[in-house]
Amino acid sequence: MNSEMKLRFGRKVISVEEARAELYAYVMPTETETVSLPKSFGRRLANDIYADHAVPHFRRSGVDGYAVRSEDIATATQDSPVVLRVIERIPSGTMPQLTIREGTAARIMTGAPVPDGADAVVMLEMTDSLQDASVATGDVKVRIKKNVQAASNITPIAGEVARGEFVIAGGSQIGPGDAAILATFGYSEVEVYRKPKVAIFSTGSELLQVEQEMQPGKIRNSNSYMLAAQVEAAGGSAWIMPALTDDPEEVEAALAAVLPDVDLILTSGGVSVGDFDVVVELFGRFDGKLLFNKVAMRPGTPTSAALWKGKLLIALSGNPGASFVGFELFAKPIIKKMLGSQCPEAKASTAFLDVTYDKPSAYPRYIRGTSRVESGTIWVQPAGIDKSSIMVSIKDADCLIWLPPGGQGYQRGDGVRIYTTL
Amino acid sequence: MNSEMKLRFGRKVISVEEARAELYAYVMPTETETVSLPKSFGRRLANDIYADHAVPHFRRSGVDGYAVRSEDIATATQDSPVVLRVIERIPSGTMPQLTIREGTAARIMTGAPVPDGADAVVMLEMTDSLQDASVATGDVKVRIKKNVQAASNITPIAGEVARGEFVIAGGSQIGPGDAAILATFGYSEVEVYRKPKVAIFSTGSELLQVEQEMQPGKIRNSNSYMLAAQVEAAGGSAWIMPALTDDPEEVEAALAAVLPDVDLILTSGGVSVGDFDVVVELFGRFDGKLLFNKVAMRPGTPTSAALWKGKLLIALSGNPGASFVGFELFAKPIIKKMLGSQCPEAKASTAFLDVTYDKPSAYPRYIRGTSRVESGTIWVQPAGIDKSSIMVSIKDADCLIWLPPGGQGYQRGDGVRIYTTL
Repeated sequence: MNSEMKLRFGRKVISVEEARAELYAYVMPTETETVSLPKSFGRRLANDIYADHAVPHFRRSGVDGYAVRSEDIATATQDSPVVLRVIERIPSGTMPQLTIREGTAARIMTGAPVPDGADAVVMLEMTDSLQDASVATGDVKVRIKKNVQAASNITPIAGEVARGEFVIAGGSQIGPGDAAILATFGYSEVEVYRKPKVAIFSTGSELLQVEQEMQPGKIRNSNSYMLAAQVEAAGGSAWIMPALTDDPEEVEAALAAVLPDVDLILTSGGVSVGDFDVVVELFGRFDGKLLFNKVAMRPGTPTSAALWKGKLLIALSGNPGASFVGFELFAKPIIKKMLGSQCPEAKASTAFLDVTYDKPSAYPRYIRGTSRVESGTIWVQPAGIDKSSIMVSIKDADCLIWLPPGGQGYQRGDGVRIYTTL
Repeated sequence: MNSEMKLRFGRKVISVEEARAELYAYVMPTETETVSLPKSFGRRLANDIYADHAVPHFRRSGVDGYAVRSEDIATATQDSPVVLRVIERIPSGTMPQLTIREGTAARIMTGAPVPDGADAVVMLEMTDSLQDASVATGDVKVRIKKNVQAASNITPIAGEVARGEFVIAGGSQIGPGDAAILATFGYSEVEVYRKPKVAIFSTGSELLQVEQEMQPGKIRNSNSYMLAAQVEAAGGSAWIMPALTDDPEEVEAALAAVLPDVDLILTSGGVSVGDFDVVVELFGRFDGKLLFNKVAMRPGTPTSAALWKGKLLIALSGNPGASFVGFELFAKPIIKKMLGSQCPEAKASTAFLDVTYDKPSAYPRYIRGTSRVESGTIWVQPAGIDKSSIMVSIKDADCLIWLPPGGQGYQRGDGVRIYTTL
């Protein structure tokens, strides 16, 4: 067997986990960049975030009402209220000027600082103002109709977050809750990882560009757009390159030309044993290092990868379903690792098989699946099981169903492992 | 009770569903715009998509191998192969020139058109080439070592998608699978709904801007950023407006000024019964129509909404947790409806409660929750149950746990309804 024949037929099969480990060895986080807080939504944080001040940083009232000394109102009831003199009115955002002493209270708003001397706040609904309480001076009095425990309705200093407390891990994707935390701690600008640039090539002389008219025997290039949408969803920046013909020199030149400008190259097609599998030919002629060219998985067994001039190249099968799955298993975690993610791989979970699936396989299967929940239990079935089109079924998938190799197939109700892809 | 007192205390409570129906009555989809296919990812389709050609539009080989007449090889076995003359070689993307007649075959690649006369394709692995099969002319022969049924490894015309078939519903969010379909059917440009513009105001004299230094008694405006991230995740375009003080005239002027330019206004804060609840005051003075000002839900009972100069205004509670929940229940479905979504509301599902929660409520509760899956079963608990900060817990939530009103609280293992927020 010559070396090209070896690339085609003498392939050494490795597991999905081994293949990922091969790739991970060459993945570095991208450099970071600073963006405004609103531009950071959906991006990944470059640094751990710690609280630069306590939350709250003052004793905060949780309700609208009256700040009191709890001992003053210990006997207060509906029938026998306690009357206190109102010495101050404290809107949110203002500091109290006076100290609450025996027999006095302060009108206080939700979120306002509790004055010194007060150890509780009584809700407005449990009081009656004896004059218009909106007058901040004079002999305003309040009738307190319920006693409350000391500390009631007061969040102490640092009651939510202590100064210096760890609040968000670097690598986290910035969602609404993170945005609130970053704003609270003054991050008008946020350091995030630069989006990895991912060049996407589809190969095959049968491919038309999207804007081209249909031609006999040809199809429009759809994988590049599917992969680009997957890249963007993973947090990368997709560069859709012109589809390549089956000329190995052209493929080598096109990939080499873009290599310096991108963080990752994806190809689809050209990796199996056909006569025109140009990516296989590329691996036979380039000056890079082949990492693997056969993975114990279905679909996508001939999924291959190489390191070329310091950049990773992942060669996916041309079949749309295999291309989708290969992206989820290999490219997505790489992009997420480049973005600093601590959990780059799809979340594994469990579910029950909603159909009987009696196609045993020599390799583990990763089946695009759709899930439904019934009475708190997750049921999954292959996506588009009622459809004949692989392509049309991809949009319905929300998970990958993992089925181990061998066996006699699987019955409805069998427990299976799933990986969330949405 | 005067009219302002009525707004504060004489509120009529309506259900979450009634409140949504009030809002929906005034929601129209935004106009549409045309963007390039790669720019359409994540956007929502303005139109139903139908297949403009069959897929495949030719009889397509599913494997690399030889196109044959199945009757010619009916007796073929490993020990007794059938030899056929190879009359043509058909790469993907090229049309066959010759018809397969008795005793002949064509070398064919995956995805290539099957020649007339052939009714099956035999996989390469079940054949031996008797000469170099890459020479397309001359006396090339192939030894077929296995018989196959008629139709084997051929996808018939329209086997995946018929011409004119409905493939994607208008209002769908364009994901990787949709991108592949759009590319296949030649949509280099895609008509999508314009992103609704959502102005976000937080109210309260206690609010500092994110870039400001901390001051006694004050806090930085975090709700606006949380809401902006929620708006963007829902598909809208968030306009973060400067925080407003507690001056009703200023609030009215600021909201009125932005109204002509946006599709929706969100406010947070100022809707409860405090002395400085300016949004309540706005509803007492503006020339709009109050839709509701009390919803049977916790948190966020005082959530209010109005129609003002033809635009919806949703006034959320200032508490970060209530603001988050109010957005998910009211603002998100409105934004999704403006984008043509057919299912604008959060997906309802079921799960088991992972903790005992013994706080009965007069109103239904919507608790920010986190889920985990164990043996195919979903368990949920309140997010950040181990944390004292509402704000810090929001980032951990992936669902809302719905608990009905009344009752004695809920035990671990009770079935509950959940709404997915991620």
